[in-house]
Amino acid sequence: MSAQILSGKELSAEIRTQLKQRVAELKQEKGITPGLAVIQVGDDGGSTIYVNNKEKACAEVGIYSEVNRLPEETTQEELLALVEQYNKNPKIHGLLVQLPLPSHIDETEILKAINPKKDVDGFHVQNAGSLFTGLPGLIACTPKGIIKLIKKSGIDLTGKNAVVIGRSNIVGKPVAILLLNENATITICHSKTKNLPDVCAQADVLVAAIGRPEFVTKEFVKPGAVVIDVGTSRVDGKLKGDVKFDEVSEIAGYITPVPGGVGPMTITMLMENTVDAGEMYG
Amino acid sequence: MSAQILSGKELSAEIRTQLKQRVAELKQEKGITPGLAVIQVGDDGGSTIYVNNKEKACAEVGIYSEVNRLPEETTQEELLALVEQYNKNPKIHGLLVQLPLPSHIDETEILKAINPKKDVDGFHVQNAGSLFTGLPGLIACTPKGIIKLIKKSGIDLTGKNAVVIGRSNIVGKPVAILLLNENATITICHSKTKNLPDVCAQADVLVAAIGRPEFVTKEFVKPGAVVIDVGTSRVDGKLKGDVKFDEVSEIAGYITPVPGGVGPMTITMLMENTVDAGEMYG
Repeated sequence: MSAQILSGKELSAEIRTQLKQRVAELKQEKGITPGLAVIQVGDDGGSTIYVNNKEKACAEVGIYSEVNRLPEETTQEELLALVEQYNKNPKIHGLLVQLPLPSHIDETEILKAINPKKDVDGFHVQNAGSLFTGLPGLIACTPKGIIKLIKKSGIDLTGKNAVVIGRSNIVGKPVAILLLNENATITICHSKTKNLPDVCAQADVLVAAIGRPEFVTKEFVKPGAVVIDVGTSRVDGKLKGDVKFDEVSEIAGYITPVPGGVGPMTITMLMENTVDAGEMYG
Repeated sequence: MSAQILSGKELSAEIRTQLKQRVAELKQEKGITPGLAVIQVGDDGGSTIYVNNKEKACAEVGIYSEVNRLPEETTQEELLALVEQYNKNPKIHGLLVQLPLPSHIDETEILKAINPKKDVDGFHVQNAGSLFTGLPGLIACTPKGIIKLIKKSGIDLTGKNAVVIGRSNIVGKPVAILLLNENATITICHSKTKNLPDVCAQADVLVAAIGRPEFVTKEFVKPGAVVIDVGTSRVDGKLKGDVKFDEVSEIAGYITPVPGGVGPMTITMLMENTVDAGEMYG
């Protein structure tokens, strides 16, 4: 293998050390301890793991955290009332409702109800609009973490071809806008794209956010490219990315592993957003 | 010349006929006449022409309109107070503040103050965020008009390569998202893009929104492509687009003229947004 590994685990550890410092300063200088509230409805196994990891990460950097585990049958009104409480709670600077929600609850309504200044997931329409139009705001964690990983490679994105596979609101579209902000030429591909391998093979930076294990083979990759793997599918009990790591790592210049790449960055960016919110609006 | 002309003038006339009908029905069925308020600060010559054209277009389709021409020295507070009045005025369904504003007024603050439900320019961060994330909302007029022109060509955008030159909040970025919503593969280029003619020459649909007269030559264009020219620069008293019409029209499949292409569509979409707002929120 020739590619250098872009380790999200390592970069996360560095950033968390800085965050610990910022949390300590914020406490000392303004008497503010940044606080994160997480609401989980129902007991989806994946969600429970994510929520636990978020709680641990808070403890690690010194963020105060509250986790609410509500029963599956919680009504939309009850959930909205809890969101409203946290919107007003001065101890809480970041609030997130773990998705997916049970089908009887309207996700869009819940996301809209979160105070945009506490919306550390960056999913509120106002934060999405701010990102899209270049205004300040809280930026979604996965795209934000991806940009930090790419920058870690040291490449200058100006004028580079960046290709994103996937057009979700959580990853594909926002990461494309962030790459555009870095002066890359951006292309968004998806299930309807023709000649997908050829389009991707022109990319200096390739972001795979499709959710299909090992979909991106070496035919998709320009020699020396930066390859970011956002996928996490469980196959026969093993975590697989969207990129066929063994063969792609032979020709890419930089590549993120799965696990240990984008995943840890997402949680660390959630911590960073909470500290940002504490500093800006605390 | 081989390209077919995509006439915004003709398509506008068709749409205005439909709008006249919708305005009449809205009046008859709900007693609502859609109303548009336009605020102009200062006497920029270009703005005055645009504002006059908007007023005429309202009269043509039966929209009630009010135009406020405020002196250059109007303060931000005075302007905000007027915006607030119109936000509450039930006769007004669409409100726009003509840009650019004098430099002593903060445009972002003014745009933020407009009720998103009356924001017929689609510039409010909430409408930008809704467009970006696929929620319903008022869509910026020029991108909306461009999509209608492209559809007029009859081509199915699914899987097509659409390349946008320009990354403004008013045209480049939103038109790219609208093309993505139509299942095109989208690329956004700009001043930092390398090998721009080659990237553009792969486009089945090429949107030029740069503001540099006759910048797009035949080297940029794939034979048979749909070429949309958003530029309007005045050169020696003549209106010029971003596309070198004479040579590009020899090889394109469809092309918009300047004038008479995107321009008339923009004003017509403003009328459509006002009627939409009247129907939805009236």
